[in-house]
Amino acid sequence: MIKLYCFGESGNAYKAALTLELSGLEWEPVYVDFFNGEARTPEFRELNDMGEVPVMVDGDLTLSQSGMIQDYVSSKSGKLGGRSANQRREILRWVLWDNHKLSSQAGTTRFLMNFLPEEKRPVEAIAFLQARLKAAYATLNAALEGRSWLVGDSVTIADLACCGYLFYPEPFGFDRADWPNIDAWLDRIAALPGWKHPYDLMPGSPADRA
Amino acid sequence: MIKLYCFGESGNAYKAALTLELSGLEWEPVYVDFFNGEARTPEFRELNDMGEVPVMVDGDLTLSQSGMIQDYVSSKSGKLGGRSANQRREILRWVLWDNHKLSSQAGTTRFLMNFLPEEKRPVEAIAFLQARLKAAYATLNAALEGRSWLVGDSVTIADLACCGYLFYPEPFGFDRADWPNIDAWLDRIAALPGWKHPYDLMPGSPADRA
Repeated sequence: MIKLYCFGESGNAYKAALTLELSGLEWEPVYVDFFNGEARTPEFRELNDMGEVPVMVDGDLTLSQSGMIQDYVSSKSGKLGGRSANQRREILRWVLWDNHKLSSQAGTTRFLMNFLPEEKRPVEAIAFLQARLKAAYATLNAALEGRSWLVGDSVTIADLACCGYLFYPEPFGFDRADWPNIDAWLDRIAALPGWKHPYDLMPGSPADRA
Repeated sequence: MIKLYCFGESGNAYKAALTLELSGLEWEPVYVDFFNGEARTPEFRELNDMGEVPVMVDGDLTLSQSGMIQDYVSSKSGKLGGRSANQRREILRWVLWDNHKLSSQAGTTRFLMNFLPEEKRPVEAIAFLQARLKAAYATLNAALEGRSWLVGDSVTIADLACCGYLFYPEPFGFDRADWPNIDAWLDRIAALPGWKHPYDLMPGSPADRA
């Protein structure tokens, strides 16, 4: 069975976990105690030289990077990967954009605003990241104008990449009400058979540490 | 002939341009006047809904995202793309990591430190990004320990992604002397037949605006 090293608070892990769940492949989560430094231990670096979650293990194959895991799972399952070479290119384009402009900055901003003690929060850096994120939300909202899904006419890993941080309850400056196309698209994703919220799909949530 | 919309100061464009140049495919640059806002015009958004450089046009096909262009060029030319399914996965893993952790933050930090008027530079945001970049340099330097190239035994688009911002002269906190494996690897890349510095490969450089 496929193992996914993950924890509930990680939107990057959520992209991989949601792709696995909706692909129909059998998988199980392995909890990584990120908040106590497990991802930075030598043992974890043996698993992933990038020192990051998620990591997928499927038999002899170990992969990291959520986008790479998504690509592997969609190839293996024959699902969520588009229907033509052009669609597959469009999908990778959005996965890369998400990694570059959306999830990277959303994840960092959410971490700074929610998982650091208040006196340690870098206020100027948060404002800077939020301004850049606003441009990313605008790009995503415009791309969804008149469309149900980012690529083609059904859900793909492009959608499951870009939504990675957008279902979380902790505030980081993203308000669905400001972006009606994103709002409707998140409702469509949440209505997919088998969809689960990150804190229901993976072990670990802020509630555990409360 | 393949056209690449680009400008010299963009390390993201450089990754695509250097991949094209070393692949042996015929290509020509089309200058985008980024510093006068051309990438944000409605005309440019028609070409790329993400409003970003680089954009590649090959006949009927238009692609953006440096990593997608690199993947396309290596498939089309049969070069720089690794020799097995495992190597191709490792390559995409490093391209994604670069987009997420290295080039995205290096490009932003370099922009803030060199292309904004001094009084507008967000000092705290720069320090924050530099601290995160230090972790990325450490990961890259460790991955290159005892190796000539990131994946397999020859140069691939993974190397050409990760080096995207590391040849530029403008300071952003990266000092080759601090990272000996990165330093030697950059020398190896610069010694490849056909290699060119970004300001020699693409139109536009700070010298034009001096």
